[in-house]
Amino acid sequence: MGSIEQTAEVRYTRADGLAEALRGADALFVYDFLSTAVPDAWHGADRLRWLHIASAGVDPVLFPELRDSDVVLTNSRGVFDDPIAEYVLGVILAFAKDFAGSLRLQDEARWQHRETERISGTHALVMGTGPIGRAIARMLRAAGMKVAGVGRRAREDDPDFGTVHASDRLAEHLPAADYVVAVAPLTEQTKGIFNATAFAAMKPTARFVNVGRGELVVTGDLIEALRSGQLAGAALDVFDTEPLPADNPLWSMPNVLLSPHMSGDFIGWRNTLVEVFADNFRRWTSGLPLRNVVDKTLGYVPSPPQER
Amino acid sequence: MGSIEQTAEVRYTRADGLAEALRGADALFVYDFLSTAVPDAWHGADRLRWLHIASAGVDPVLFPELRDSDVVLTNSRGVFDDPIAEYVLGVILAFAKDFAGSLRLQDEARWQHRETERISGTHALVMGTGPIGRAIARMLRAAGMKVAGVGRRAREDDPDFGTVHASDRLAEHLPAADYVVAVAPLTEQTKGIFNATAFAAMKPTARFVNVGRGELVVTGDLIEALRSGQLAGAALDVFDTEPLPADNPLWSMPNVLLSPHMSGDFIGWRNTLVEVFADNFRRWTSGLPLRNVVDKTLGYVPSPPQER
Repeated sequence: MGSIEQTAEVRYTRADGLAEALRGADALFVYDFLSTAVPDAWHGADRLRWLHIASAGVDPVLFPELRDSDVVLTNSRGVFDDPIAEYVLGVILAFAKDFAGSLRLQDEARWQHRETERISGTHALVMGTGPIGRAIARMLRAAGMKVAGVGRRAREDDPDFGTVHASDRLAEHLPAADYVVAVAPLTEQTKGIFNATAFAAMKPTARFVNVGRGELVVTGDLIEALRSGQLAGAALDVFDTEPLPADNPLWSMPNVLLSPHMSGDFIGWRNTLVEVFADNFRRWTSGLPLRNVVDKTLGYVPSPPQER
Repeated sequence: MGSIEQTAEVRYTRADGLAEALRGADALFVYDFLSTAVPDAWHGADRLRWLHIASAGVDPVLFPELRDSDVVLTNSRGVFDDPIAEYVLGVILAFAKDFAGSLRLQDEARWQHRETERISGTHALVMGTGPIGRAIARMLRAAGMKVAGVGRRAREDDPDFGTVHASDRLAEHLPAADYVVAVAPLTEQTKGIFNATAFAAMKPTARFVNVGRGELVVTGDLIEALRSGQLAGAALDVFDTEPLPADNPLWSMPNVLLSPHMSGDFIGWRNTLVEVFADNFRRWTSGLPLRNVVDKTLGYVPSPPQER
């Protein structure tokens, strides 16, 4: 932030000082990207023109007053793409090779041979065709999996996915998948899309991976599907309540791999997020178009035509 | 084995009946490929012409009498290549993304964010340039890693590795590697090659992966390197004594991922191994050249020229 401090008056604040700090501010950089403080402090935004968030998902700041305002919203698209793709491939391999089983046997010093699964030739369905979903598709394909996407519009010639199914027909395509990966932005259309009906449509041998937002899932339905054996496993990095309360049954389910919203958080990510903001800040003060401008109606940055 | 029983008299035996079953037998299929029974029963081999083993490594049957005999030795090259490659990529991602840490925190219902490592751009050194090593090299490269090999002869134009270093200069190339993968055949040249000197040459942040043979490693030296922090971690699927005794310190080391000699054992592998033998048996009875003939002096199947 050093270079920015030479150009602008920079105010650093926590949630409780945000309304006051916003008064007279032209731009807001939301570094704590899961904070829900912005709507509550919005009354202080008397001349704000630009809000940048240090995340890919913009749902925490996409409240009606921001949406209906002229404030430009940008995100940190790109930073998390490949790290999250590595994470997703990792959890898929962890399921296939039963690493959790190996670790639990190791803790007991028990030598117990098992046969494990191949991932080559298995089918992944990736819900979300933004840059993170694309990086996941490329990584899983490189590792020998067959991949299809789920996005707003169906198409057959997508460069990363090949086939993309329309999200309103998700249920039809779930039965073919060995792995279902949720990485869609959280919008009115996607909220709770992974519910009892969706889980019932999946193979009993399928695993569900959520690296998007917890609210894409009806958590009670997921727990029930995992308990009943309707679904073989889940790797969950995001939850509808974070931190996940210690009494949530997901913690102790043997077929769940749980991590605390960190799938994209590689060593150095915080510096990278500041650099992404600083780059956009230089563009803003130079009168250049901002990068990663969110379509506030869609709830995400529309892909350039070649990625559609 | 049904089709073979129509052509030949098939005797099934365990170790204790092997010497007797060998009398008068033309071919021996060693299905229990870790058995050490063959040398002890060798006095019964009065007309044996062919020995086929249901594994890639032939070290359990490469005793002097077999080596000096005219008995042709074939192995099950190819069956384990891609499954082991998936396994190796999986353990590398498990280290990078700290899945063991996540599982241990999950057992305590503790939400503890960590920053994790990328694998993209990291360096893997694969000791062993046979088909399994090649499959590993292709898989790690596909996932964004930089890979070099270690084999008998140095070369720069290998189709899978690019650069292959000569194994007698292994120590010079260890310091550059983030991951060192052992998958060489066990021979007089490779036995104990991963010793205190080798581990001392590795980065303190490096991880060691053994999917070859336990005897490639001086186990005490590995344990000491892991204890002292000279090495950051190890994923071990093979051991100099198997099953690994319950009092071996490796079981309880937090930076070790341990599995019971199963990295290539995908669901269906046993049938595939029988099919590989049956295919060679048909070739043998038809007078065709056998597949996967081991060079008993080298201790493995020499690669065809294009793979050298």
